[in-house]
Amino acid sequence: MKLSDIAGIIEKNENFIILTHFSADGDAIGSSLALSLILQKLDKEVCIIFEEEMSAMYSFLPAASAYCLKTLPQKPVFGEYTVISLDTGDISRLGERQKIFQKAALSINIDHHHTNQGYADHNFIDSTYSSTGEIVYELMLELGTELDRDISMCIYVAIVTDTGGFKHGNTNSRTHLIVSELLKFEVDTSYIAMQVFDKITKAKLLLMRRALDSLVFFLDSRVIVMKITKDDFDDTKTQDDDTEGLVELARNIENVEIAVFIRESKQDSFRVNLRSNTEFDVSEIAALMNGGGHKKAAGCNFKGDYEKNLAILIEEISKRI
Amino acid sequence: MKLSDIAGIIEKNENFIILTHFSADGDAIGSSLALSLILQKLDKEVCIIFEEEMSAMYSFLPAASAYCLKTLPQKPVFGEYTVISLDTGDISRLGERQKIFQKAALSINIDHHHTNQGYADHNFIDSTYSSTGEIVYELMLELGTELDRDISMCIYVAIVTDTGGFKHGNTNSRTHLIVSELLKFEVDTSYIAMQVFDKITKAKLLLMRRALDSLVFFLDSRVIVMKITKDDFDDTKTQDDDTEGLVELARNIENVEIAVFIRESKQDSFRVNLRSNTEFDVSEIAALMNGGGHKKAAGCNFKGDYEKNLAILIEEISKRI
Repeated sequence: MKLSDIAGIIEKNENFIILTHFSADGDAIGSSLALSLILQKLDKEVCIIFEEEMSAMYSFLPAASAYCLKTLPQKPVFGEYTVISLDTGDISRLGERQKIFQKAALSINIDHHHTNQGYADHNFIDSTYSSTGEIVYELMLELGTELDRDISMCIYVAIVTDTGGFKHGNTNSRTHLIVSELLKFEVDTSYIAMQVFDKITKAKLLLMRRALDSLVFFLDSRVIVMKITKDDFDDTKTQDDDTEGLVELARNIENVEIAVFIRESKQDSFRVNLRSNTEFDVSEIAALMNGGGHKKAAGCNFKGDYEKNLAILIEEISKRI
Repeated sequence: MKLSDIAGIIEKNENFIILTHFSADGDAIGSSLALSLILQKLDKEVCIIFEEEMSAMYSFLPAASAYCLKTLPQKPVFGEYTVISLDTGDISRLGERQKIFQKAALSINIDHHHTNQGYADHNFIDSTYSSTGEIVYELMLELGTELDRDISMCIYVAIVTDTGGFKHGNTNSRTHLIVSELLKFEVDTSYIAMQVFDKITKAKLLLMRRALDSLVFFLDSRVIVMKITKDDFDDTKTQDDDTEGLVELARNIENVEIAVFIRESKQDSFRVNLRSNTEFDVSEIAALMNGGGHKKAAGCNFKGDYEKNLAILIEEISKRI
């Protein structure tokens, strides 16, 4: 189905519920808020329902408090409504809200995940878009709605987060062309980058400190090992989520070829992630330790004595590097 | 002078030497390489002369080895030539190469620094451009040269570095519009981001480890102190340059209002930088310690006993926070 057809369906209906995947990220939140603002401009009734409270990280977004915005309501919001799911690759990712999706008079599914099977009455799925925010921008044009500062900020956040700050491979010429339109309005790109990328919790920083303290270099610094123990997680009050970005810190060191990231999942049980910066095939090493994966990223577990396991791992790497 | 006039002058001449400021950064190098490629396409003779060896960080750029590329040559490159200085706000920033600039038959100065006084025969200075790379892109259009992958990569690096990855306030609608043209060619944005932003030396990582180990939180974690001693620099074989980004790591912690960054410049002599994330005026605190600065960023020195000085600093902050 074409975006112009989706626009045609939207024009003919009045009451809308917007849903996005649980654990909503920048693209999920930004595209939902943007679409709610666009529908408001068309004098539609609109409500966004999130699975959880919206992450405080995105509370600066202008639309965040402006419209009907709920976590799972007790009573139905509308008698009859059209549901639009955004950025949701699979219906199961609507969690508890699958009921709301299923009870809709009409359903629309707008997404950029190539795995999306098209579970709605009307589907627009195109994985050439960097983000659902980009698709919402083009839908706005089809609906004949004019861009404004609030919509620009929401779509900017959607795009900048899903492209990792315009770095990831999904960033293309169209992405920047759309952003050039958004920045005709006053969008504070420094402030947004601070909110969505640079801010760090104290707990996570303390975990990063433990991770850096753990660093050991092997084989003339071509191999680096970073280790986080259960005590590190407990002492810093952090969880597995908070390790995001730590292995990158290790593998970005100049001349490091292989980064080994080890997490103690429970007492004396270690999960090992291997990353290769070169043609060295880390999946071979993982396989030797009863693990698996790909050439550049693989994993295995250490069972039994930690030091013994690490010695074997390093020796096997040294034979092949 | 308009860019079309600069283009007209370039068209009438044959031999070009391109100069840029010493300590050449991404914009200096990217815009110089891009312009050299553009002039080559117009069948001009062209040579770039850098003050120092080009930073290895940029050695991946396609043009880097393609054309005459020198550090201060012993003999003149051309008998008669036109010199073009790029991204050079002041002629003194050409260092030893001021002689080359002055001996030119004709000189052109292209820059985006608003402080540029226009020291050449022909000057194009416009601080609405995010980077000199952006200006070189538009000059290319004026010259009627077609964009290609190599030129795109060079201009992309110029823009992405000077805008801090499209974050800084100098990023605008035109910036993204130009980048949308560059990305019509195969520019590996992930790889470039890795090279110019994410790579870190082992020494710098070890300094970061020391900096994180030094962190002390005061006043319910509203104030954070990071300290790097002379021993830290010596042990990790790092210099003051390597502290770039460290104070940001501290001030980006959620709920931190004031970040205090202390460096031991020589034994028992400490340079103190204060950064405020709120309306708290750190220049007042700096003034009390015989320093100065602005509301959000100020500095002073600790003389005599470190602990005593730090106690005074924290007490003065606590009275006002």
